[in-house]
Amino acid sequence: MKNMIGFFLLIILLTFLSHSLLPEEGMWPISEIHKLDLQSKGLEIDLKEIYNPEGLSLIYAVVNVGATGSFVSPDGLILTNHHVAYGSVQAASTKEKDYIKHGFLARDRSEEIPAKGRTARITESYRDVSKEVLSVVKKRMSFVERTKAIEKKMKEIVKKTEQKNPGKRAEVAEMFPGKTYVLFIFTFLRDLRLVYVPPRSIGEFGGDVDNWMWPRHTGDFSFMRAYVAPDGSPAEYSPKNVPFHPKKYLKIASGGANEEDFVFMLGYPGRTYRHRTSHYLAFEEEIRMPFVVDWYGWQISVMQKMGEKDRGVALKHLSRIKGLSNTMKNYQGKLTGLKRLQLTAKRQEEEKALREFIGKDKERKAKYGDILERVGKIYEQIREQAEYELVLDYIRRSVNMIYFGYTVYEAAVELQKDDLERESAYMERNFPQTKRRLELTLRNYYEPTDKMIMKEILMRAANLPQKHRIPAVDDIVKGGKPEEAIDGFIEKAYAETELDELGVLIDSMTKSSQKLKEMNDPFLKLAKALYPTYQKLKETQEARKGALDELYALLIDVKKQFLKKDFIPDANRTLRLTFGRIRGYDPADAVYYNPITTLDGVIEKTTGVEPFDTPQKIFDLYKAKDFGRFMHPELKSVPVCILYNMDTTGGNSGSPVLNGRGELVGINFDRAWEATINDYAWSEKYSRSIAVDIRYVLWVTQKYGGVDFLLKEMNVFK
Amino acid sequence: MKNMIGFFLLIILLTFLSHSLLPEEGMWPISEIHKLDLQSKGLEIDLKEIYNPEGLSLIYAVVNVGATGSFVSPDGLILTNHHVAYGSVQAASTKEKDYIKHGFLARDRSEEIPAKGRTARITESYRDVSKEVLSVVKKRMSFVERTKAIEKKMKEIVKKTEQKNPGKRAEVAEMFPGKTYVLFIFTFLRDLRLVYVPPRSIGEFGGDVDNWMWPRHTGDFSFMRAYVAPDGSPAEYSPKNVPFHPKKYLKIASGGANEEDFVFMLGYPGRTYRHRTSHYLAFEEEIRMPFVVDWYGWQISVMQKMGEKDRGVALKHLSRIKGLSNTMKNYQGKLTGLKRLQLTAKRQEEEKALREFIGKDKERKAKYGDILERVGKIYEQIREQAEYELVLDYIRRSVNMIYFGYTVYEAAVELQKDDLERESAYMERNFPQTKRRLELTLRNYYEPTDKMIMKEILMRAANLPQKHRIPAVDDIVKGGKPEEAIDGFIEKAYAETELDELGVLIDSMTKSSQKLKEMNDPFLKLAKALYPTYQKLKETQEARKGALDELYALLIDVKKQFLKKDFIPDANRTLRLTFGRIRGYDPADAVYYNPITTLDGVIEKTTGVEPFDTPQKIFDLYKAKDFGRFMHPELKSVPVCILYNMDTTGGNSGSPVLNGRGELVGINFDRAWEATINDYAWSEKYSRSIAVDIRYVLWVTQKYGGVDFLLKEMNVFK
Repeated sequence: MKNMIGFFLLIILLTFLSHSLLPEEGMWPISEIHKLDLQSKGLEIDLKEIYNPEGLSLIYAVVNVGATGSFVSPDGLILTNHHVAYGSVQAASTKEKDYIKHGFLARDRSEEIPAKGRTARITESYRDVSKEVLSVVKKRMSFVERTKAIEKKMKEIVKKTEQKNPGKRAEVAEMFPGKTYVLFIFTFLRDLRLVYVPPRSIGEFGGDVDNWMWPRHTGDFSFMRAYVAPDGSPAEYSPKNVPFHPKKYLKIASGGANEEDFVFMLGYPGRTYRHRTSHYLAFEEEIRMPFVVDWYGWQISVMQKMGEKDRGVALKHLSRIKGLSNTMKNYQGKLTGLKRLQLTAKRQEEEKALREFIGKDKERKAKYGDILERVGKIYEQIREQAEYELVLDYIRRSVNMIYFGYTVYEAAVELQKDDLERESAYMERNFPQTKRRLELTLRNYYEPTDKMIMKEILMRAANLPQKHRIPAVDDIVKGGKPEEAIDGFIEKAYAETELDELGVLIDSMTKSSQKLKEMNDPFLKLAKALYPTYQKLKETQEARKGALDELYALLIDVKKQFLKKDFIPDANRTLRLTFGRIRGYDPADAVYYNPITTLDGVIEKTTGVEPFDTPQKIFDLYKAKDFGRFMHPELKSVPVCILYNMDTTGGNSGSPVLNGRGELVGINFDRAWEATINDYAWSEKYSRSIAVDIRYVLWVTQKYGGVDFLLKEMNVFK
Repeated sequence: MKNMIGFFLLIILLTFLSHSLLPEEGMWPISEIHKLDLQSKGLEIDLKEIYNPEGLSLIYAVVNVGATGSFVSPDGLILTNHHVAYGSVQAASTKEKDYIKHGFLARDRSEEIPAKGRTARITESYRDVSKEVLSVVKKRMSFVERTKAIEKKMKEIVKKTEQKNPGKRAEVAEMFPGKTYVLFIFTFLRDLRLVYVPPRSIGEFGGDVDNWMWPRHTGDFSFMRAYVAPDGSPAEYSPKNVPFHPKKYLKIASGGANEEDFVFMLGYPGRTYRHRTSHYLAFEEEIRMPFVVDWYGWQISVMQKMGEKDRGVALKHLSRIKGLSNTMKNYQGKLTGLKRLQLTAKRQEEEKALREFIGKDKERKAKYGDILERVGKIYEQIREQAEYELVLDYIRRSVNMIYFGYTVYEAAVELQKDDLERESAYMERNFPQTKRRLELTLRNYYEPTDKMIMKEILMRAANLPQKHRIPAVDDIVKGGKPEEAIDGFIEKAYAETELDELGVLIDSMTKSSQKLKEMNDPFLKLAKALYPTYQKLKETQEARKGALDELYALLIDVKKQFLKKDFIPDANRTLRLTFGRIRGYDPADAVYYNPITTLDGVIEKTTGVEPFDTPQKIFDLYKAKDFGRFMHPELKSVPVCILYNMDTTGGNSGSPVLNGRGELVGINFDRAWEATINDYAWSEKYSRSIAVDIRYVLWVTQKYGGVDFLLKEMNVFK
């Protein structure tokens, strides 16, 4: 009897260990999830309920709306992040009706307003097309030819598929570069409407200060609804449209989740770089990210200084500062993570072991013996060229007027080509979007700031060493004093240009090269002078990609042999599953973060000054302890955000966080600062992502918003 | 049998509760500690071992060296904070021998160097002298007369006592203002020498950034030694002097302390304000502290801007910025604490209950019925005058040249009086110190900054409402445009003054009023014009203090009756005992701080840039895991700092943290940010103070400093 108890205890212990201590890394493609024993980790439903090509499954409830969202009712109600809907809410706002500030509520379906520019893609099916794609690769192709041929083939497959499936959208995703390619077919909905959006003081509480941070107290959620034509087919907005009925929608777990609970997530993570070598990590850590942090920091400080004197200017710069500092904070987090985890050194050690493994077998040595060295050589070139390429790249990206001039100039060149031959931005399916981006940039254009940025980046270009001259910049300086020459050029160019007028700019986008020449605009002339340099840069980069793709494909082969395990491809905006547990962490010596925050923290952080202002009604509800059914039983307050060790990256915004029964417990919206390292490696110590707790979503919607009918639509009230 | 077990469990539970959950508030005067049942809390030694007027006790091991220190060897070795010794270390440093940067080590006693300006006071005895002090108070005295009479009497008792006890120092401390007064007699040692001081990168690691912060990683300790004349009597520095043999020195607990261990502390806490009413708290919260935070913040930003262009100027401003930002950060912490704990509202509720208690009894009502209202009235006046008084006060305190002029002018007035009649700064025993302060201020004087500060504060004065005019400022403006007039005055005054020359300044300190008049210095003329205004301010403040002292004495009487308990007086730089436990806390929603930090955190925080630079040798020792006997058994690293809920305030710096056996486990040096609230109230939630762990002191001293002989002297090696 005693032995039996011991035996059972052992079983319990082992079960516990297997449940809680195994690493939970991975953004798994749906095609790979059958390799996971999710049931042993805590999944209570059948894998087929997650993906089943022959029937209904959860993936039909997940939509790509830029980032991710999910259907939560039979009538096409979508729950996603506040920051995902932000652009549409802003576009629908006017001075009189400021939906960002006050939030938006449609009291019935007739009051729902279009979420401009927003579309929803639902993954319908996928198919491996590696063979077809790689069939175009010929033995003696140069790396550039190879890259171009593959890209063209991918475009062809997409075009063919979309023609065969009217109303659907297709995409070929590169899973392992140079190795595996998958064709996805999506249902593509184009009539999305806003339903309920909380005010900025809830949906964006903490703003940039709390961005990338835990503990978090942001109610980052909003409701939209998808509409289709009366016959059920996807259609543009029309008042006659009817709610879309998704094949599947998520059940709400109104009790939320608790510490150490098993959770999983479906979503569209953007990009990761986990299969890259130490050379890449060292380049990022030592050269590229420090350059970008410095350059973005400089631009931010200029924009802040310009904004100090004039609130109007400050508002113009707001979203650009937000974007730059988001990236900057992300990179700073990555740099910290790389240092703390000593990631580059660890990868070097792994590579050393791999080298030894390769060296042990003659055949292996012949095939793989020089891969790492060849990757290293390419990164030596990249390093050597880095400053030149970065400066060159940011001339076009950071200076609005050069961006305008260059885009217009390039459009004229590209539009003469066949659609499939064009740069993606100028293909028919993408051209409207490209014009919209110009328009948005011009809306926030401010000449004095643009001049300062142009001067700074041109000065940096003028100071590049002799072997890295940019002819167009040398033409400006003409061997004289760089500062004088650049100042003179800028004064004249900004005075003369007409591309800063919206009408002129958009008209120019469809003009022929000849007509553009006749405009005689200084920024078009500059674009023309820069064009061959950018073309050369593009060819260099394509050649590098071609060479690296081939090497990485080989590297993965040999790593599989060495580690005797399969790998999953880096994130690439395709549907993935990740799983893990609600779990806190130690961000620093003597500090522990709990995985659940509460309304107490909202009150605590509130200063009354943006981004830490809170509506009075929230205070009143808090004082009255009017927590409804959404109080956490131990914390005695409404949970606001939850933290977990799942493997996420940008693009997972809005992803549903699901419990073991596949019910919605939260909406993913961010990572903890140290987890920016996810792009290079997942770490049990630091990889933590953040969701708004479903209990906060429901509490705010019911108690603050007074929107009982949405809770009824979601079946939270029976 | 079963019942017995239940009973024992109950006993254990009750013991646990009484040990760990009782509030541990209080800075107890040594005369009161017999009221505490410290044994039940965890004290393992007899109370007589802490204080025993008839024999040896721990208090003889505690010295006041500005803040607090303690003897740790029979040969007068003193362990205190790095920041307490800082001034002396800086004074002993030269460009060639930078002891702040590199640390200081005397390899034997002959190498020990004088700790300039530093003295040590050891509490020898104390006696209640309330009756004698209050004997001078006559019935019909005005409040001003009363305050002056008491102050004079205190000075008389000190003088008489010091005459009777040659070589000793005496002090009358006001325990409960207007109520109880205690005479302390101190042994006064004047020859202190530096023995071992770690480099700034250890002793000040984290600098201003980490100041007032937990988790902390500062090795804030240093060793000094006290010397006396060969006959054992206190003496000024002489090479013939010999080490002082204290009556008692502390035993070192080289194993340190652990979470939840009982600890106590002896030291000289500065000032607390716990007996003040809600009117005082509201005034601090709403008016005084916000004014000071704003004014100090303005000065800091000016000094930083001036320093940006010139490293020499930056160095001049360094210690002043440090001082101002220390106070500013402290006030910001207090403001946060007041808000979080809703302290003013809570005190108002207590006062409401007290009022009801008073109202219930006719006699009580007659005696105490209007106390709170009268205190309230005084604070109404204080509020009404606040801006005027604050601006007036900071004219003299913030502008160096006005401070010089005013001190010189006031010295001439005061030196004509009898010693006991003088303002304390000009009494014979204090005059050298006053001159030294002028000298130190002049050393870091920078005219352009001083002009900007003068302009700003005079502009604020010029903008005061009509009823609060400062005649000296009106004289400058003369009804013209304030900015023009003030600019003109400043230009002329700074050009003409000679008080910015050290020789002139110090000479002027002993000149007669007539001689000063002949100097015709613009800042002496300004001082003369300001003098009557400051005299009037002083009288107003003395009258207020007299009135408030009387009211507070009554308030404490009735509070004792109401709450049926004794109170202990506010901290007043006299010897106090406090006790508590090593304990972490929750600083914010979802965040927990552990009470012990380790060397891991030092490594983690190190960026290589001051104040987060760390000597290479520390890195090497860490990598080699050369932790000696000082590794924490669970944390597997050397503990660096410890946190506890003891009740401390400024002045407790350097205080010994002792375990239940009275052995040294740490040296107190700071409070956590939220614990700045201690000045108003102790809170189990937020009151946490910080010590450097004795294990870190010993590890750094042995492994980094290589100073084995000090560990032997302290008996850490047997």
